[in-house]
Amino acid sequence: MLVLHYAPDNASLIVRLALEEARLGYTTALVDRSTHAQQSAAFRALNPAGRIPVLVTPEGPLAETGAILLWLSEQAPQLAPAVPRGLFLQWLFFLSNTAHPEMRALFYPHLYADEAGRETHLAHTRTRFTAALRLIEAACAERPALFAAPSVLGAYVVAFLRWSVLYARPEGWFALADYPAVAAMARDWEGRNSVAALCRAEGMAPAPFTAPAPPDPPEGVAL
Amino acid sequence: MLVLHYAPDNASLIVRLALEEARLGYTTALVDRSTHAQQSAAFRALNPAGRIPVLVTPEGPLAETGAILLWLSEQAPQLAPAVPRGLFLQWLFFLSNTAHPEMRALFYPHLYADEAGRETHLAHTRTRFTAALRLIEAACAERPALFAAPSVLGAYVVAFLRWSVLYARPEGWFALADYPAVAAMARDWEGRNSVAALCRAEGMAPAPFTAPAPPDPPEGVAL
Repeated sequence: MLVLHYAPDNASLIVRLALEEARLGYTTALVDRSTHAQQSAAFRALNPAGRIPVLVTPEGPLAETGAILLWLSEQAPQLAPAVPRGLFLQWLFFLSNTAHPEMRALFYPHLYADEAGRETHLAHTRTRFTAALRLIEAACAERPALFAAPSVLGAYVVAFLRWSVLYARPEGWFALADYPAVAAMARDWEGRNSVAALCRAEGMAPAPFTAPAPPDPPEGVAL
Repeated sequence: MLVLHYAPDNASLIVRLALEEARLGYTTALVDRSTHAQQSAAFRALNPAGRIPVLVTPEGPLAETGAILLWLSEQAPQLAPAVPRGLFLQWLFFLSNTAHPEMRALFYPHLYADEAGRETHLAHTRTRFTAALRLIEAACAERPALFAAPSVLGAYVVAFLRWSVLYARPEGWFALADYPAVAAMARDWEGRNSVAALCRAEGMAPAPFTAPAPPDPPEGVAL
């Protein structure tokens, strides 16, 4: 049995989407961000880095979004895109080590700069994140199989689209229209049962990636 | 045949170490950083992100240090640590998406902050990088198999030790003695033929991880 330790609209949503596509049975355990439960001793026993998500597996607790996605793709091969193995790994690492950390740096600027340097930090980070999105767009246009559902690469990218609109201040710097291949891919995802299940579970309105609205989760607080 | 596109003392050294341990035949191609060859159209055809290393494989060009290491461990299973698959993946992603980006942020502060905010940026980054090293130390003490040679996880970590001393200004903030389990692991690595081969190829003095000195590479320029 798999248990996903999650918080609404957190990186755990990517794993939930992959779990839904994998059709592996799983249950969830809320990590209460309102009390910083992700930094508790109990949670750090699952992931010493104190970050959500964790997937508890028969092997033990497994952390890191990219690692969980890859592990799941080894249990449910349909989650791996129909491209050479190396190319799949390259893009999974790129999303994990380039796009995802820039997103974190946009969400939590106080961890990166003092008040005086915050706008500069955000501007630099937006520049780097936008460059990453452009590379993703080019790859998506050239090789749609990389991100087409149910590829875990696509599940990862659609979350970035949502978060860029909802959580990366200031509003308005991100325009989905700048990334037409990615937008089409995200619309395809939005027609899937996995996304409907995600929306029900985490209180998200329809079109959560291409027209995101703040969530109203049935339990817990969003990021 | 495998071709490693490398620059001296760059992230490619981690891949070279893994290739030496894998005993897979390979040749190298210098990426001339003095002319910013990593940003040329020819190099971007290999890796659109314009970053070193690239390993050209029979499948095609493969970029991202973490992806290359994982791919190699699937060709040469002795490169995977003797731990559950998920735990291996978790630490490989952690090194790639947490420790490695912080190292980049220490090397290239001008990409992250204006002159006025640079010291604050570096201080925040050192704090986060040190937290990552402490997690690595705890894991290394608790589960030595994760990083023991020839694990690609160990090959990755020993590079961070070298770079922390040589390239992450200001000098003196990093002390190997703070990480005794990691230091012992790095000393074990330094006794291996793979490290001797690395030192010959990239002009590094002995003990390149525990007592690093600036390299004197036979070709190209270090970072």
